[in-house]
Amino acid sequence: MDKNKRNSFGESTLISLLVTSLKGISQVMLIENAITGFVILLAITISSYSLGIIALASAVLGTVVGKIGGADENTVNQGLMGFNSVLTGMALALFLSGPYMWIVALVGAVVAAVLTASMMHFMGSTGIPVLTFPYIILTWFVLLASYKLEGIRISPTLVPQNLTSWELHTSGKIRLLDVVFNGFGEVFFLTEVIPGILIFIAVFWAGRKLGIYAAIGNAVALLTAFLLGGEHTLIMLGLYGYNAILTILAVSAVFNSEQNRFSPLTGIIAACLTVPVTASVSIWLLPYGLPALTMPFVLCTWLILGARKVLPKL
Amino acid sequence: MDKNKRNSFGESTLISLLVTSLKGISQVMLIENAITGFVILLAITISSYSLGIIALASAVLGTVVGKIGGADENTVNQGLMGFNSVLTGMALALFLSGPYMWIVALVGAVVAAVLTASMMHFMGSTGIPVLTFPYIILTWFVLLASYKLEGIRISPTLVPQNLTSWELHTSGKIRLLDVVFNGFGEVFFLTEVIPGILIFIAVFWAGRKLGIYAAIGNAVALLTAFLLGGEHTLIMLGLYGYNAILTILAVSAVFNSEQNRFSPLTGIIAACLTVPVTASVSIWLLPYGLPALTMPFVLCTWLILGARKVLPKL
Amino acid sequence: MDKNKRNSFGESTLISLLVTSLKGISQVMLIENAITGFVILLAITISSYSLGIIALASAVLGTVVGKIGGADENTVNQGLMGFNSVLTGMALALFLSGPYMWIVALVGAVVAAVLTASMMHFMGSTGIPVLTFPYIILTWFVLLASYKLEGIRISPTLVPQNLTSWELHTSGKIRLLDVVFNGFGEVFFLTEVIPGILIFIAVFWAGRKLGIYAAIGNAVALLTAFLLGGEHTLIMLGLYGYNAILTILAVSAVFNSEQNRFSPLTGIIAACLTVPVTASVSIWLLPYGLPALTMPFVLCTWLILGARKVLPKL
Repeated sequence: MDKNKRNSFGESTLISLLVTSLKGISQVMLIENAITGFVILLAITISSYSLGIIALASAVLGTVVGKIGGADENTVNQGLMGFNSVLTGMALALFLSGPYMWIVALVGAVVAAVLTASMMHFMGSTGIPVLTFPYIILTWFVLLASYKLEGIRISPTLVPQNLTSWELHTSGKIRLLDVVFNGFGEVFFLTEVIPGILIFIAVFWAGRKLGIYAAIGNAVALLTAFLLGGEHTLIMLGLYGYNAILTILAVSAVFNSEQNRFSPLTGIIAACLTVPVTASVSIWLLPYGLPALTMPFVLCTWLILGARKVLPKL
Repeated sequence: MDKNKRNSFGESTLISLLVTSLKGISQVMLIENAITGFVILLAITISSYSLGIIALASAVLGTVVGKIGGADENTVNQGLMGFNSVLTGMALALFLSGPYMWIVALVGAVVAAVLTASMMHFMGSTGIPVLTFPYIILTWFVLLASYKLEGIRISPTLVPQNLTSWELHTSGKIRLLDVVFNGFGEVFFLTEVIPGILIFIAVFWAGRKLGIYAAIGNAVALLTAFLLGGEHTLIMLGLYGYNAILTILAVSAVFNSEQNRFSPLTGIIAACLTVPVTASVSIWLLPYGLPALTMPFVLCTWLILGARKVLPKL
Repeated sequence: MDKNKRNSFGESTLISLLVTSLKGISQVMLIENAITGFVILLAITISSYSLGIIALASAVLGTVVGKIGGADENTVNQGLMGFNSVLTGMALALFLSGPYMWIVALVGAVVAAVLTASMMHFMGSTGIPVLTFPYIILTWFVLLASYKLEGIRISPTLVPQNLTSWELHTSGKIRLLDVVFNGFGEVFFLTEVIPGILIFIAVFWAGRKLGIYAAIGNAVALLTAFLLGGEHTLIMLGLYGYNAILTILAVSAVFNSEQNRFSPLTGIIAACLTVPVTASVSIWLLPYGLPALTMPFVLCTWLILGARKVLPKL
């Protein structure tokens, strides 16, 4: 083999790794599409340069763990070993500070891939996908560990509170445009309008149906949050929207089959359910000061996907 | 077809739905018997007219979800899609207040049926029944959501407490008659003597053995609670009894086979175990102010039913 | 049959029971070796006479439950029905006080065996061992029950704390010799040097490789704890070491196969992971004042063993 051939071989491996990693980013939105992944990465990078780097690095690390560990090639190439790493790396970089922050975030991305593999095995017999559960559990564990380890410092925005002294404040103004696109941005912890719009476009690019469902899910969740009297500041930040978007995509567009006649309706109901579930998960976590992350999405999606095995028409 | 025939067809469907729903009510006591269900419904209605309505409506909703969703007909007809809905509807109507209370309770009953289906799938491979686990989880989640949503208001009797400032009070008088029948009533949140007696009769009607076991389970649990020094107010309210009743029924009379030689003894031991488990679950939930519901029954029954697969003589 | 023969038959049964019980003690360290078990029992007895008795009695009770319940003979004879009972009996005797303490500890040992059987069934389809999970859950439940039952009193060293008022103290002197062998002793709640050394010898006796791995696991965990800034008092007590020892034994020496090429490295990484996981589990339990016990070992080992089914080279 001459030098050129070897070079191009190395290049093609590198390109394949990059494509798979971008798919890993798009898989956060339950989509396997490198361009969608690239646009999302762009949205993240616009919001914060360093966050963009950590997102890509985490996706690469997750993919590499899958390849080195000997995972099924199909699973790796679909980006399924990457998306939990992406979210874990980003969440740890955002919620931690201190000298080891970068190392912890990248080690977290590696462990996220291992935990994803582990959860895949534990849930294998049920035929239900692990979704972002590994990322959520891992992020919660690392954030809590910071209280006992001086080398890891947690962001001062995460404050443990006692439910005994809890008070609800729902006042505050709502600016609709912000709210709508924050729902998209918040999947990746972004709260600006431009990145939110870019992520919406990225979803739309992967399929018009996906974009429409996402918009509907966001809308019905906001409506439910208003009707049930959610906190305006949280609604403003899109914190009642991003779980609904992911849930309706999963239930009505990604994990459904022809058998599920009521699939669009089920998705809308599931999107509405994410609102009380988000409220509930936040209260469970109140004494620990942890964010709900995408747990409401995971719970509501598991609820429906599991139920469909017994109630096939849902 | 003439008009009469069609009418009678509609009627027979309605009667079948009613019978299945009454079975759904009786399944709370692990019994498939419409008359038992009817007597229990009577007991609930005597205690509170509106609670009786919500119990029946929830049972109907659960059954309808099963039918529309396309569940296995046998499962639906045995009332197995109804009992979690009955308890969820009742619990939410009791523990919530505010304008949306009725809607939340009925939506809760619907979601309880979906969650029951989902849990059935997740536990399917273990061969262990889901029992009232879906109802417990769902009720806890909705109650907690109330802290973040103005539209749902939680009963002021449910107060979060810190374990750091917890003090145990065991003083108080015991009136034996109340205590004994409260154990039966408390399965359906009733604390009066007459409904308690009616529920006991309802169980006895379904089978003399069931009635005797239930009485024994109640008795040994009360004895254990006294010996271990439980709070007299809780013992009085029957809160140490109802989990024991359900557990001994499950272990010794419903889910046992001939192989389980020690079955009566195992049931009695399991009934005793519900006492420390009830204490423990209450403490886990103390910071959230949530009631233990039938979680001790679920845990103790799963303990034995699971163990029997490895220790077949139990 | 003459009298002698019958006697010797009874004796051989008794000896077989004793050997199996000693294996039950050694299985706490994931080792099936009666002599290892005996040396560990010696170490416990040197530290506390009564603790030695409860350890042996618990091992016997667990084994007897397995035999009476009709468990698979192989499982019982390997000591697999005993080790959770040993730890539960010891933990309850140590953390409880009051008149019923001994009875509660022994009843706890019996229930631990039943719970082990139950968990074996629930995890059966995953092919992942239950490890010490039954002991941990059971001990936590009994300790919490004490807050509601006057007959069970909890040790004053276990104090519930609010995370809202939590402060980290990492100052304090380190004496290396103590630290090193405390890691071994703490598996059995021992904090003296001689018993620690004895337990290390017991592991070494069962296999040189096991001893070396255990020493490495302990060392890397201590190093990680220092680097991440763990509390010196906890490091001193060996509380960051014993979970690492158990984890590296499980991952690199006991539950690995030839396929797992990176097995030694994976074990070391898993041992390092126990440090943040220990910190995290302690914070989860802070509001309840419960000790982490061997939960970090269970979580880290399940993480790797599960992941290996998808990433076979780990």
